Amino acid sequence: MSKKAVCLLSGGIDSCVTAFIAKKQGYEIFVLSFKYGQQHQKEIESAKKIAKLLDVKNHIIFDLNLKQVGGSSLVDSEIEIPKNHDLKDIGAKIPSTYVPARNTIFLSVALAHAEVLNADAIFIGATAQDYSGYPDCRPEYIEAFQKLADIATKKTVEGKKIKIMAPLLFLKKFEIINKGFELGACLEKTWSCYSGKELACGRCESCLLRLKGFKDAGKKDPVKYSFYPNWYKL
Amino acid sequence: MSKKAVCLLSGGIDSCVTAFIAKKQGYEIFVLSFKYGQQHQKEIESAKKIAKLLDVKNHIIFDLNLKQVGGSSLVDSEIEIPKNHDLKDIGAKIPSTYVPARNTIFLSVALAHAEVLNADAIFIGATAQDYSGYPDCRPEYIEAFQKLADIATKKTVEGKKIKIMAPLLFLKKFEIINKGFELGACLEKTWSCYSGKELACGRCESCLLRLKGFKDAGKKDPVKYSFYPNWYKL
Repeated sequence: MSKKAVCLLSGGIDSCVTAFIAKKQGYEIFVLSFKYGQQHQKEIESAKKIAKLLDVKNHIIFDLNLKQVGGSSLVDSEIEIPKNHDLKDIGAKIPSTYVPARNTIFLSVALAHAEVLNADAIFIGATAQDYSGYPDCRPEYIEAFQKLADIATKKTVEGKKIKIMAPLLFLKKFEIINKGFELGACLEKTWSCYSGKELACGRCESCLLRLKGFKDAGKKDPVKYSFYPNWYKL
Repeated sequence: MSKKAVCLLSGGIDSCVTAFIAKKQGYEIFVLSFKYGQQHQKEIESAKKIAKLLDVKNHIIFDLNLKQVGGSSLVDSEIEIPKNHDLKDIGAKIPSTYVPARNTIFLSVALAHAEVLNADAIFIGATAQDYSGYPDCRPEYIEAFQKLADIATKKTVEGKKIKIMAPLLFLKKFEIINKGFELGACLEKTWSCYSGKELACGRCESCLLRLKGFKDAGKKDPVKYSFYPNWYKL
């Protein structure tokens, strides 16, 4: 019987490449995405397209509205999403796009889902390189969640290991993009922009990290932008 | 400025007494309850009444339907809730009422809420005595979640401690009930029965643990039952 994995899939590059890695490793894929009140719900559409191309076993779009607790510009339209960032500032300070305890909540639900499915692993696209400094993307965080998972469920207490896999943890954005090209991951279907408009804005932190990654990888971003920073050469 | 606490309140005895302990300790109380698809939604009504009596700052009834992942008789009407238990069997095997990763999910959302509020503590009514053997109620579990919380959020990374408080962890049910009487907790408003009917069933594990607790405390349970086990003397 093949191994099963729950793959957290936001619809962005990192989670897309992560899911393709899981597939490559021979896992049967069960995708879990969240409608958490994000302003850029467009990423859900991307997640659907990616899941389809991955030919996954199942795709749950889990409804869990974090507006109920608030505290982030991504879910609270009264807090502004920062624009016109300077690349060099990214990661220096945790920005308002940080969603309180988001990965903890997502991993918890993934753990529940993994237990119900009797899955062997949970894949998450967390990365601690070229990132926004979110605390719940760091190696020590993933390690702490693994320790919690090991004793948190009926299955894990009975000796079943549910491995928290974060294969991008130490990769830089351009390496993730290269990995994506290598695996034939459908990067053209991914969505990263926080604004969720028709075209990517090219100004938010997420767009900047993405464009910088493509530039460093020497590749063209297949997604269309309404604005390109001057350092990004097509 | 007074200390703030997020109190997880299901509407049962344990979380009710826990919230009264938090109040007694001088915390400003922010209550968090979950509509998670439980068949016994009646407990939500109890939680509302308790929160009102506690005169809390705020009460969020968070919508998070665990039917989306399933796997428990409490959220899946196709799995039967066990009845006619023998008291001596309780805790020997984790029953079908176990909800995968429930406390992990609830604590994660509480962590998000606590971070947004800049709260000092999260109170949970977990107890590892006279309980159903749920893995996410044990001391080592609470400890592991504390370790995770310490590095999971922007606030905790910046040095703010959010303490996970489980004051009932080592108390037996009759001690919890005595504590409730001592604090004037409104045990008559609590609801424990898994069936969620007009009267408590007196047959499910939750009813049995509760009645046994009252019996051992030498007190009468103020809640009405449609059936009383023969060992329970009024």
